[in-house]
Amino acid sequence: MLYFRNDYQVGCIPEIMKALEANNSNIYMPHGQDVECQKAKDVLQSKMPDVHIDVHFVSGGTIANATIFKAILKPYEAVIACKTAHIATREAGAIEATGHKVIIVDDNDGKITPAAIEKTFNQHMLGYGMMVYPKAVFISNATEMGTIYSEDELHAIHDKCKELGLYLILDGERLGVTLMSGVGYTLNDIAKLCDIFTIGISKNGGLFGSAIVITNPELEDGFPFVMKQTGAIMAKSWLIGLQFQVLFQDDTFYQLAKHEDELSIQLQNALHNLGYPLLMKAYTNQVFPILTNEQFEYLSERVDFDIWDEWEGQYIIRLVTGFTTTQQDINDLCEVLKETAKIKLKK
Amino acid sequence: MLYFRNDYQVGCIPEIMKALEANNSNIYMPHGQDVECQKAKDVLQSKMPDVHIDVHFVSGGTIANATIFKAILKPYEAVIACKTAHIATREAGAIEATGHKVIIVDDNDGKITPAAIEKTFNQHMLGYGMMVYPKAVFISNATEMGTIYSEDELHAIHDKCKELGLYLILDGERLGVTLMSGVGYTLNDIAKLCDIFTIGISKNGGLFGSAIVITNPELEDGFPFVMKQTGAIMAKSWLIGLQFQVLFQDDTFYQLAKHEDELSIQLQNALHNLGYPLLMKAYTNQVFPILTNEQFEYLSERVDFDIWDEWEGQYIIRLVTGFTTTQQDINDLCEVLKETAKIKLKK
Amino acid sequence: MLYFRNDYQVGCIPEIMKALEANNSNIYMPHGQDVECQKAKDVLQSKMPDVHIDVHFVSGGTIANATIFKAILKPYEAVIACKTAHIATREAGAIEATGHKVIIVDDNDGKITPAAIEKTFNQHMLGYGMMVYPKAVFISNATEMGTIYSEDELHAIHDKCKELGLYLILDGERLGVTLMSGVGYTLNDIAKLCDIFTIGISKNGGLFGSAIVITNPELEDGFPFVMKQTGAIMAKSWLIGLQFQVLFQDDTFYQLAKHEDELSIQLQNALHNLGYPLLMKAYTNQVFPILTNEQFEYLSERVDFDIWDEWEGQYIIRLVTGFTTTQQDINDLCEVLKETAKIKLKK
Amino acid sequence: MLYFRNDYQVGCIPEIMKALEANNSNIYMPHGQDVECQKAKDVLQSKMPDVHIDVHFVSGGTIANATIFKAILKPYEAVIACKTAHIATREAGAIEATGHKVIIVDDNDGKITPAAIEKTFNQHMLGYGMMVYPKAVFISNATEMGTIYSEDELHAIHDKCKELGLYLILDGERLGVTLMSGVGYTLNDIAKLCDIFTIGISKNGGLFGSAIVITNPELEDGFPFVMKQTGAIMAKSWLIGLQFQVLFQDDTFYQLAKHEDELSIQLQNALHNLGYPLLMKAYTNQVFPILTNEQFEYLSERVDFDIWDEWEGQYIIRLVTGFTTTQQDINDLCEVLKETAKIKLKK
Repeated sequence: MLYFRNDYQVGCIPEIMKALEANNSNIYMPHGQDVECQKAKDVLQSKMPDVHIDVHFVSGGTIANATIFKAILKPYEAVIACKTAHIATREAGAIEATGHKVIIVDDNDGKITPAAIEKTFNQHMLGYGMMVYPKAVFISNATEMGTIYSEDELHAIHDKCKELGLYLILDGERLGVTLMSGVGYTLNDIAKLCDIFTIGISKNGGLFGSAIVITNPELEDGFPFVMKQTGAIMAKSWLIGLQFQVLFQDDTFYQLAKHEDELSIQLQNALHNLGYPLLMKAYTNQVFPILTNEQFEYLSERVDFDIWDEWEGQYIIRLVTGFTTTQQDINDLCEVLKETAKIKLKK
Repeated sequence: MLYFRNDYQVGCIPEIMKALEANNSNIYMPHGQDVECQKAKDVLQSKMPDVHIDVHFVSGGTIANATIFKAILKPYEAVIACKTAHIATREAGAIEATGHKVIIVDDNDGKITPAAIEKTFNQHMLGYGMMVYPKAVFISNATEMGTIYSEDELHAIHDKCKELGLYLILDGERLGVTLMSGVGYTLNDIAKLCDIFTIGISKNGGLFGSAIVITNPELEDGFPFVMKQTGAIMAKSWLIGLQFQVLFQDDTFYQLAKHEDELSIQLQNALHNLGYPLLMKAYTNQVFPILTNEQFEYLSERVDFDIWDEWEGQYIIRLVTGFTTTQQDINDLCEVLKETAKIKLKK
Repeated sequence: MLYFRNDYQVGCIPEIMKALEANNSNIYMPHGQDVECQKAKDVLQSKMPDVHIDVHFVSGGTIANATIFKAILKPYEAVIACKTAHIATREAGAIEATGHKVIIVDDNDGKITPAAIEKTFNQHMLGYGMMVYPKAVFISNATEMGTIYSEDELHAIHDKCKELGLYLILDGERLGVTLMSGVGYTLNDIAKLCDIFTIGISKNGGLFGSAIVITNPELEDGFPFVMKQTGAIMAKSWLIGLQFQVLFQDDTFYQLAKHEDELSIQLQNALHNLGYPLLMKAYTNQVFPILTNEQFEYLSERVDFDIWDEWEGQYIIRLVTGFTTTQQDINDLCEVLKETAKIKLKK
Repeated sequence: MLYFRNDYQVGCIPEIMKALEANNSNIYMPHGQDVECQKAKDVLQSKMPDVHIDVHFVSGGTIANATIFKAILKPYEAVIACKTAHIATREAGAIEATGHKVIIVDDNDGKITPAAIEKTFNQHMLGYGMMVYPKAVFISNATEMGTIYSEDELHAIHDKCKELGLYLILDGERLGVTLMSGVGYTLNDIAKLCDIFTIGISKNGGLFGSAIVITNPELEDGFPFVMKQTGAIMAKSWLIGLQFQVLFQDDTFYQLAKHEDELSIQLQNALHNLGYPLLMKAYTNQVFPILTNEQFEYLSERVDFDIWDEWEGQYIIRLVTGFTTTQQDINDLCEVLKETAKIKLKK
């Protein structure tokens, strides 16, 4: 069996395991007040020299998002997102559970446009006092569809948010593969454009953990209280801080992401050449080929993958490269896909 | 100025005011445990002989909806509605404030279809355990657009809900004008098709108040507790029970609604004959003509109405007939509309 | 049967019923944007000349409290109250349902002291970041026990709140009988001491309704949004505004309250002279005599009242005077109580 | 500096670190559907042969508690706890944030009695429909005060809960040191007495993680959905499952706990012999001596510890033994304490 189900199916890079072991007997202050978290913040700050950042480390992406919106929104305020956004789908209503509406707007391949933001904002102003007040925009980069925002697109969204008084929140659970996909912008640029963003490592070399980076000083106040309330603070937060140090002090984070991107592009090219329709062009480490029923069954027995959607006897599947995926894995997968492709021809 | 802004811009019918005055010195038990609420329940039950009903009286529609979904949904369960649904728009996020997602599905002129319900249900089953669980369907009848569900449509939605294990909840803030619009079904039929529905009177002869009618006995347990918690129980609930008695013991409720419908159809025909485009064909007491900028300005100075939407220099406005609207009011309005229509021609 | 169960067992004073009838056919803007609410605000403002007030009218006390704390507290902030406070008992967890903890502190006969506030505040500061942050103090005046805060006590609490940065919120569902009990302070004084307070009329001449008076301008922003979300805004809010006008333009509110107090003091004196133990000395319109089992049974057949608590074969009952209670009612009750008192002697 | 601040100030036992490293490259299913979590459940089930258990692994104690009460309580239901309970203090209102009241009852040294449960239950029944409905009892074992419930006490609470229809929920973040303190009951007994309980490992040999053990089958339904919603499910849950296997397959969990208890008892005896007053007699790994101001200052410079409370110039401090505390650490601490004790004498 070949494994392309997701990018968090294994543990961490050996360097992190070694660091955990080496510091396992140290005595640390609890709840993020330790020196490792402080050092990790310093390392991250050094990557974003143009912006003063406040950083908190939490165990994962869903609790990061729930904590962020609980902390920054007033009871009647809502967040704008697109229909494929993680907060709108695969978080089991975590945002609504904090009392806030997720307003769905149209998207292009998982990406929101300034026009869509403005349109929904204006509609809500027509119902001012009766409807929720849109106060934040949530984007994922890369998106759930594997697409990415260009620098121009990010600037345009940022400008629209500033104009309308909205916070821009960026979910960076796959920020590594985004920055390494040739976009031309950096972590420092992200910090300049967003009010809060996250950096996920569980899909990019780490065991677990996300950093919540707050760049808008108005949003810092009370944030740790909300983290405590949502259960987002780990007793031994140093475990996360240490992982961020390992990944960011030598740019390992970026190298792993680049590796994931390169293998994924190879895979996409192979799929294209084999004649598979693709849901959309991918730029990061997720590819979404469309299979017939027969192809799906054949492939299922040989490759472990996720089903993205199905209709009318067709399957959209997701193939994901991870930081431990090897060139040989890709070669083997392409061989299987070659055989799978023939099934259609036989029919 | 002519007043067509909404159907709750005046108080109540004189019979209700008289009843309130006549019973004003009576001593009543508080919080809905009084004889007037009991009598009102009995009257309502007599209108729905085929179904055992549990009834609670609350002050209005938003708190009715918030209380219903808070009471019947588990934390991870959600309600399906369309994008123009009151709970999705003009309740300022009241449902999300109770922790539950409102899942938006496609609609036809404000009406949900069984196909849309099934499609979104299946998508959520694909993400079982990760996404919210759709457990209820919310429809308004009449809808916010003034459209109504036919008996066949209601049966089809009811059957689909039963098939998928979903509760069917009907917002009846404008149920009177619906039942009198020639649909061919009755309160008793509604009771057979829905798990919970509301009957609003503040738009149909009453001062204020909604009845929450529970027909699914599984949903009765604990409901009064949740009402207490949301602040939905009025100390002097007898005020609402008495109003329901007056409106339902002699079918006054229906006569008022019929009056509203008839004047509204007259108005719609006049608009059509004057060449106004209409957002959609109305069946109840709301009409949505589309005006140019110049028409809008001219009419605004002579008639009090609500703006529904605006784009590209056009205005969709809402004209509503109420239980105190007279034939003379309609005649006067039609005169003004005739003048207004000419403005377009001049251009 | 004599009725002393509560002070909201009848409708309203005739003047209010007349005003409702007289204005029943007027056309009003909805949701509190009408002229009657504006006039009512002006009348209330005239009673509190030293403070600029923002006023909102809602249907009752529970929804007023839930809306206030939802509006003013951040997710991790909590409100301090005593164990008999309405928000801590008879609101079915309405405050917690908005996500906020009610921190219970010791009280004297239903009254909180500055020392109790400071002690619990300091304990929470020791757990800063781990415990909720106390941000508001909730007091009722009169309390649920019928006791009242003296002017000195109010000043002391106010000063302590200012010192610690806490909002002082006063529940005035029985503010009328408080101000008329000889305390020596006025509505204007209350406005100077509290950040937000309520004025209830359903227990003092009105059909229903509470005014939420905001004196701290920092707490005004967004308040109507939260009201909409909790369902606290009535479509025909003018009904409440009109009642407040009637009650406050000619000091009727105060005369009714004075009447309630006077009859209650008579009743308390009679109880004392008849040898009944009292739970505590009352100052307003609620009296809490303690009865034996036999007395309880005898009185239950002749008088309608509420049970406050029971232990060891004794009953604490509550006798309440209302604005329609007459001197004859009190005389009749005293006769019954005289007979009831003998039961103990017989044993 | 000697470190006695808490029992989670270091990482994990070497055996766990080795197991993590050994399995780091394995491919696992995400979100707790992996083989390590399944094996861990099997090991735990083997320790509780008399009860069928359902087990979920989460990252920590606060999120475990918030998830449990969100999952099992209806909106108007509440949980009974004592004032020192973790959910009542150091979780920043996490339970209230899910909408539920924590009802505080009297305790003896952190322990609840059946009499206190019954008294508060009955008071709430007097206010049935007006007050929250108490539906669960929360106890910690060991308590936050280091005290433990005897087997008789647990049975009595269990019986009272059964009689009143209440769920019994036990917080077992320090369950290891409880079971090894000579109480005479086992994990299997706990499983028979509680509806849900937790087992924490971050204070007893593990890096992080808690097991939520559900023994009442009625409470299983929908639990994973709520976990997803609160963000309690880690992507790589196998990390926790593996730790539980290591700790429970060879009774390492118990040996570590026994070690902590033994050193703590030594420490307590030393404190007693040195004349320190103790807040209460400890049975597990936490000791609470009371120091004067001068002693506090002297000790602070030599030992790292937590402040529990302070009043009138006295400090209650907490000294905690952990699984890495050595006999030498205790000896060194006792030496310092001997010097510290003299400070009082000098004065």
